[in-house]
Amino acid sequence: MTLLNGKEIANQIKDEIAAEVGEMKIRGEKVPHLAAVLVGNDGASLTYVGSKVRSCKRIGFESTLKHLPEDTTEEDLLKLVSELNADPDIDGYIVQLPLPKHIDEEKVLLAVDPEKDVDGFHPTNFGKMALDMQSFIPATPFGIMELLKRYKVEVEGKHAVVIGRSHIVGRPISILLSQKGKYSNATVTLTHSRTKDIKALTLQADIIVSALGVPGFLTADMVREGAVIIDVGITRVPDASKERGYYITGDVDFEAVSKKASYITPVPGGVGPMTIAMLLQNTLLARKRRTRE
Amino acid sequence: MTLLNGKEIANQIKDEIAAEVGEMKIRGEKVPHLAAVLVGNDGASLTYVGSKVRSCKRIGFESTLKHLPEDTTEEDLLKLVSELNADPDIDGYIVQLPLPKHIDEEKVLLAVDPEKDVDGFHPTNFGKMALDMQSFIPATPFGIMELLKRYKVEVEGKHAVVIGRSHIVGRPISILLSQKGKYSNATVTLTHSRTKDIKALTLQADIIVSALGVPGFLTADMVREGAVIIDVGITRVPDASKERGYYITGDVDFEAVSKKASYITPVPGGVGPMTIAMLLQNTLLARKRRTRE
Repeated sequence: MTLLNGKEIANQIKDEIAAEVGEMKIRGEKVPHLAAVLVGNDGASLTYVGSKVRSCKRIGFESTLKHLPEDTTEEDLLKLVSELNADPDIDGYIVQLPLPKHIDEEKVLLAVDPEKDVDGFHPTNFGKMALDMQSFIPATPFGIMELLKRYKVEVEGKHAVVIGRSHIVGRPISILLSQKGKYSNATVTLTHSRTKDIKALTLQADIIVSALGVPGFLTADMVREGAVIIDVGITRVPDASKERGYYITGDVDFEAVSKKASYITPVPGGVGPMTIAMLLQNTLLARKRRTRE
Repeated sequence: MTLLNGKEIANQIKDEIAAEVGEMKIRGEKVPHLAAVLVGNDGASLTYVGSKVRSCKRIGFESTLKHLPEDTTEEDLLKLVSELNADPDIDGYIVQLPLPKHIDEEKVLLAVDPEKDVDGFHPTNFGKMALDMQSFIPATPFGIMELLKRYKVEVEGKHAVVIGRSHIVGRPISILLSQKGKYSNATVTLTHSRTKDIKALTLQADIIVSALGVPGFLTADMVREGAVIIDVGITRVPDASKERGYYITGDVDFEAVSKKASYITPVPGGVGPMTIAMLLQNTLLARKRRTRE
């Protein structure tokens, strides 16, 4: 069994980006600038956004955090989005989800300039991705594809079973894995809450991507010998014995499944760190595209 | 076995649209106006476009055919696209594919105003479809979904196997079948040229959508008893005994497969007529959206 060490690969990618940013500085060019919009004080969101901003600093990006109060109106948020679209200094930005319930997420998403949408959540980017055009690929599925590629995991001709059809992971990874290309070309089955017998399908899978958010969902009896296991579930389980008051766990019963798997991602330290690395990669890409224009 | 009679359902849909257009006229409203752009003289394209224009007339739409010579430059085509975007009288239009080789299809596609893109080929519409937002759904997969719905074929919880990952059929139908909804919610496997054992998958399928364009590809030994069979393949086979010099055939060995199927589409008279009906439906929708603005 080989551990797909997302933390290590993410650090490699960040080093590569940092080196490129270093050269940009030497050439006197503008460095990439990522802005993050956070509305309210959701604990997980604060952690994610904080981590993104710290990563930017470490690799030499400029970063801006726009932290708005929980009761920000939709109108004010849309105004900020429109300012970020117009600001020539901002190369890319993200609006951290979920937004408070009184704000229409779809409306905000549609207001983001697709050219600055480094999360790849705007329908224009999503459609371009699905149609094999150049776009910003959502960071989590992008990270999974990159991890498979860097570990030279064979994907072509394999049967991949994806669990969960979310817009940010399940749906896009099902598309990416089945596209033409040396590191994709898989036959993909997308399963979800209405699938009748998930186990019958996962038992046929060469590759399983679990993006459900249900701790311990994927057990060893659901996995065949030699399968590649990608665990995208990140759930915070309350635990008084931990300093933070919780621990992080994935969808996969790691202890048992890792004994059968050929490759497996740990949680934490697997897909999570890759997500941030690919967000930075998208931001670098956004900067370069803006230079070329 | 029940025949999924696309011709009959398409005529029903056209009658419904014609009735609605009749009411629009009575109210003194502008009727939907579809334009079709055809470059060159490809035989199949001429037939398709001709059929679309005739259908428009029959149901009371206005229609315009822009037929350009084979040697039209990309620049001139883009100029026409931009005129159609600006023309307030045109509610929707299609650019018939394939375009001559000297023209960049992607560039033309991206130039179409998504609000007038009744083919649903623009990435913004494709992305909205994939993200469950209101959009124009490409006519062929839209037609398949409508056919299943009108015949009350159970899709929810079923395992659908799609053969072929084209941007206009395989990819979008794999997305639509697996979305949330009463007439979707299927578990979907998308197979293609790199799939190692298609038969092992089709034998598990409750629903098979074949969109390959290979006559007779789907044989009875690949299908289980009671499966629903949707044949999207439309191939012209040269035949001197026919007046036109060819006959139309699908991907499915109809004679043998129909004996095992619970529902099956014929070719011709199945998915083909539905495609035109849904294009008209999209054009009606485009007109209504423009009225609401």
